Amino acid sequence: MTQPTYQIDIQPIGRRIEMPAGTNLLDACQQSGIELVAVCGGAGVCATCRVRLASGTLSGVTQNETEDFSEAELAGGIRKACQAEILSDLLIEIPPESLSAPQRLSIEGREEEFKWVEGVVRAVEVEVGRASLEDLRPDTTRVIQAIQAQADPNKKHGRIYFDSEAAKQLAPALRNNEWKVRLAMRGDEVVAVLPQGTKIYGIASDVGTTKVAVYLIDLETGEIVAKGGAMNPQIGYGEDIIARIRYINDHEDGLKTLQTRIIDGLNALIEELSKEANIRQEQIVEAVIVGNTAMHHVLAGLPVHQLGDSPYMATVGESLDIKCRDLGLNLARGATLYLPPNVTGFVGADHVAMLIGASLPGTRKTIVALDIGTNTEISVYHNGHHFTTSCPSGPAFEGAHIDDGMRAAPGAIERVLIDGESVQLRTIGDVDPIGICGSGILDAIAQLLEAGLLEPRGAFKGQHSRLRGVGGKAEFVLAPASQSRTGRDVRVTRRDVNEIQLAKSAVRTGTECLMERAGITPADLDQFVVAGAFGTYLDVDSAVSIGMFPKAERSKFVQIGNAAGTGARRMLVSMEARKLADKITRDVEYVELAKHVGFTKIFARALMLE
Amino acid sequence: MTQPTYQIDIQPIGRRIEMPAGTNLLDACQQSGIELVAVCGGAGVCATCRVRLASGTLSGVTQNETEDFSEAELAGGIRKACQAEILSDLLIEIPPESLSAPQRLSIEGREEEFKWVEGVVRAVEVEVGRASLEDLRPDTTRVIQAIQAQADPNKKHGRIYFDSEAAKQLAPALRNNEWKVRLAMRGDEVVAVLPQGTKIYGIASDVGTTKVAVYLIDLETGEIVAKGGAMNPQIGYGEDIIARIRYINDHEDGLKTLQTRIIDGLNALIEELSKEANIRQEQIVEAVIVGNTAMHHVLAGLPVHQLGDSPYMATVGESLDIKCRDLGLNLARGATLYLPPNVTGFVGADHVAMLIGASLPGTRKTIVALDIGTNTEISVYHNGHHFTTSCPSGPAFEGAHIDDGMRAAPGAIERVLIDGESVQLRTIGDVDPIGICGSGILDAIAQLLEAGLLEPRGAFKGQHSRLRGVGGKAEFVLAPASQSRTGRDVRVTRRDVNEIQLAKSAVRTGTECLMERAGITPADLDQFVVAGAFGTYLDVDSAVSIGMFPKAERSKFVQIGNAAGTGARRMLVSMEARKLADKITRDVEYVELAKHVGFTKIFARALMLE
Repeated sequence: MTQPTYQIDIQPIGRRIEMPAGTNLLDACQQSGIELVAVCGGAGVCATCRVRLASGTLSGVTQNETEDFSEAELAGGIRKACQAEILSDLLIEIPPESLSAPQRLSIEGREEEFKWVEGVVRAVEVEVGRASLEDLRPDTTRVIQAIQAQADPNKKHGRIYFDSEAAKQLAPALRNNEWKVRLAMRGDEVVAVLPQGTKIYGIASDVGTTKVAVYLIDLETGEIVAKGGAMNPQIGYGEDIIARIRYINDHEDGLKTLQTRIIDGLNALIEELSKEANIRQEQIVEAVIVGNTAMHHVLAGLPVHQLGDSPYMATVGESLDIKCRDLGLNLARGATLYLPPNVTGFVGADHVAMLIGASLPGTRKTIVALDIGTNTEISVYHNGHHFTTSCPSGPAFEGAHIDDGMRAAPGAIERVLIDGESVQLRTIGDVDPIGICGSGILDAIAQLLEAGLLEPRGAFKGQHSRLRGVGGKAEFVLAPASQSRTGRDVRVTRRDVNEIQLAKSAVRTGTECLMERAGITPADLDQFVVAGAFGTYLDVDSAVSIGMFPKAERSKFVQIGNAAGTGARRMLVSMEARKLADKITRDVEYVELAKHVGFTKIFARALMLE
Repeated sequence: MTQPTYQIDIQPIGRRIEMPAGTNLLDACQQSGIELVAVCGGAGVCATCRVRLASGTLSGVTQNETEDFSEAELAGGIRKACQAEILSDLLIEIPPESLSAPQRLSIEGREEEFKWVEGVVRAVEVEVGRASLEDLRPDTTRVIQAIQAQADPNKKHGRIYFDSEAAKQLAPALRNNEWKVRLAMRGDEVVAVLPQGTKIYGIASDVGTTKVAVYLIDLETGEIVAKGGAMNPQIGYGEDIIARIRYINDHEDGLKTLQTRIIDGLNALIEELSKEANIRQEQIVEAVIVGNTAMHHVLAGLPVHQLGDSPYMATVGESLDIKCRDLGLNLARGATLYLPPNVTGFVGADHVAMLIGASLPGTRKTIVALDIGTNTEISVYHNGHHFTTSCPSGPAFEGAHIDDGMRAAPGAIERVLIDGESVQLRTIGDVDPIGICGSGILDAIAQLLEAGLLEPRGAFKGQHSRLRGVGGKAEFVLAPASQSRTGRDVRVTRRDVNEIQLAKSAVRTGTECLMERAGITPADLDQFVVAGAFGTYLDVDSAVSIGMFPKAERSKFVQIGNAAGTGARRMLVSMEARKLADKITRDVEYVELAKHVGFTKIFARALMLE
């Protein structure tokens, strides 16, 4: 009798492995090159290989697990990997502290010189007269009058007022600090009362479907004081947006659950950065979070049902100001979260932020700018007009739906060079290969094309010692079992090639349709801007080779990193940047691809690897 | 051996009774004329005589109490009065449902014709195009554009935006109502999304130290749809402001506790009125609450420590807008609470509201206006100037610190006529007398003066069948034991007279000092306005006789009822009224009595009953 084999999905690293029934879970991870911490070497003594069983069946909880974990933890599916055997298909979540090799997160955007004219939140120091029988003005009145006294007489001011939570801080702050305080003012609103000389900070964050980046910013200088990233904790509820919306539709508290997960995740990061910078969270008085429309809606607790069904509608377009306390974000009690505007259900605030981060709005140049992900948003600027669209490029560029695919984590093949019989690889972290990530598969296909081992339609051809099988079963071995950390071959399969064809065709089709709408050809381009994590690491030549990008001059291509994060930081400190965001959504023309004449023809042509 | 006697304070009716140890609590209440419901006649079978032991010792809980009350109730001190014997001094709270005779609450103000120009919250109906691939504008965008399309082109509009909670209601509302909705708009902010044709309402409330009045208002017509009142549930934590501030200073969660009590009390009244008017609480989109500075601060959760110590400072002067959800007030999720401005620690938003309710701001006439309570706030208008002050008049006018005193509840003597040997009484509810309330004691003293039985210094003199004792022990029997419901004499004692002298002297001194500051005499007065519950029921001639009010022409006196409630209703519906409130606090001159030249002399003179 053969042992049945089960599939184990490992989150958040996005690896799927197959293991015979009864395999120990820690062994399974280690055999697959997933570096779980296991300080005691699997003896069950420590709890460092802690994982969470999200679905499926493992062997029963052992005594040393009941000793180390609380009932709540056990009820939540927390297990020691070393104590559990695989008894079905599984979904396993690895908490960050159990992973010995950190994920690679793209949090660096291009840092350009950027000067803001009108800040969003400013610090104002005031000293007021003490309360006495001769001066019975309420605390707020004396403070407001002191602010007015130092205001620029040439600038128009509205009525100054206190946020109701900030007002609570005033009486003790005045009396404990010799009647001198520092106020954080958001326009005419006092949002925090702090001791004199205390610096004020803000949070800018890019919440992606997969990853979350957070920056702690000095609001008076605009400098990044600390930054950090983590996986989006919602990932356990679905890898992509559609799966998460389905989860929400199917569970009464689904929206609340996913909202809580991301808020908790952000709070953890904010706490971490505050500790690193040695500041109190009450000093953080403003936040900006950018994300795609679905991430935006879930974060704000807005309904997403209509986002999951055609015509995939955003319910909120305009920017939102939400008191952080309404969401449970742990900043100053009076702090505000600014959520920039969304264009449509598929072009969200993250794309708006990307355009601002790349300094594109208002350009007179002819520019294509795109942010490649599960969904790829594209903008074209020409003659002062701005067109945008979005296309479903799927998760292949993130290593999903690729037979030996994985996310851009240590052990992922990210560069491939095929030179005759020699196959050279570069992996993230320079370790033995475990699998292949998006930029690696792109490189591999470009190299296979160049080596004459692939046809434009996606079929393998020719002869190579690494090429085996035929037709739909053909595959090219990038790393043989002897060199891989998993002890198995890491391959590019015919199916992988087809996945990439579909994905790159979506991107190319969106770009072509927008360029047609704008009436331009690749020769007209001044710039072709590629943003985002995958866009940062991909090889532009490979992307052009396989026909994902149009054949423009190499010098026109610019890879700008996490421009959405840069845009978020600009909107954190600058009113001009926020006005720009409003202007983008007012002026942009959204092009619906399915309604573009010639769409089907363009798509079919774009499937070709050429 | 004589049985010891214990004092029992009965709240919220403000009665103090004395009973021998071991007396049954229901009997004690009934003997004292306090009409506790007791459906089963004290057999212990029903639970209608339910009371709460706030402090002191009663006999042990009986079996039929453990059967009828939950553990939580018992732990909270809930008892059946019929099952409990008095074993110490006690503080007993009677829940409203256990009182057979309702309290008299002053909730009617003078209803004048009042037209507002600019409403605070208005309803806007919009119908928008359905979402389709041809029209992918987000829900908010299509709604905002529809609002702009119907806006008055001659009026300046700001940027229209959604409250983040109101935004959550939009997607389902549009899709469930054929893309037609009714919006509640507060200026440029959409605060609620409702089905077409749904009416919108507001809440105006006057939160006094003792009583709470709530009005449910149709925001489109300004009409009162329902109204109700209750005792301020904070009363169990101290009868007056100073006692409650002490409670807060002495208890870590004291502020939160008292805040929660008043919010719960308001929520209960709001729920009651909503049921009565058959509306959903989501239709209530705006609230205004007025109260003295301490009530204001506790409601908003603002620190009160500095309010309890000289110089008794308000921390917040200016008006506050607070989202009702921040306080836990159960209205529409996007509803706002407007708290009008305070002048000082002793002249709060309730006085501002009273002035607005009496249409006084901006008057060119010479007017004295006052609201008599434990603290009495006084305003003087003359030549367009406005002076205000406050004086500590104590609780005597509310029947406290009076030997046979009680609040204005059924059984309280409220009018007295002494004609030779005949003593005629009128009680609230026309029942046999239990005690004497503020207006009754005022009348009694005025009548005793007129009958030549009192000297201006406050000593009894002369001969009367009802006058007995001498010197400090002298007393005048208003209702002999045979006629009273308690079976004891209801008397006016020498001590009572002294209490009233102190209280009326405070009011008179405040009035005199303000009039001196304004440079006017009683002859200059166009009007003498008396507001508030006690002010409504007192006899003006008696008040003038005993020297509480200056000797102005009788026709100048106006009693206007709960003008603070009227002012709150005006501020609920009118932006002009709110601007007026700001203007009052900007323009008024607060006169500190202790610093007024001649204060001591005026006070000594004002003690005389003349």
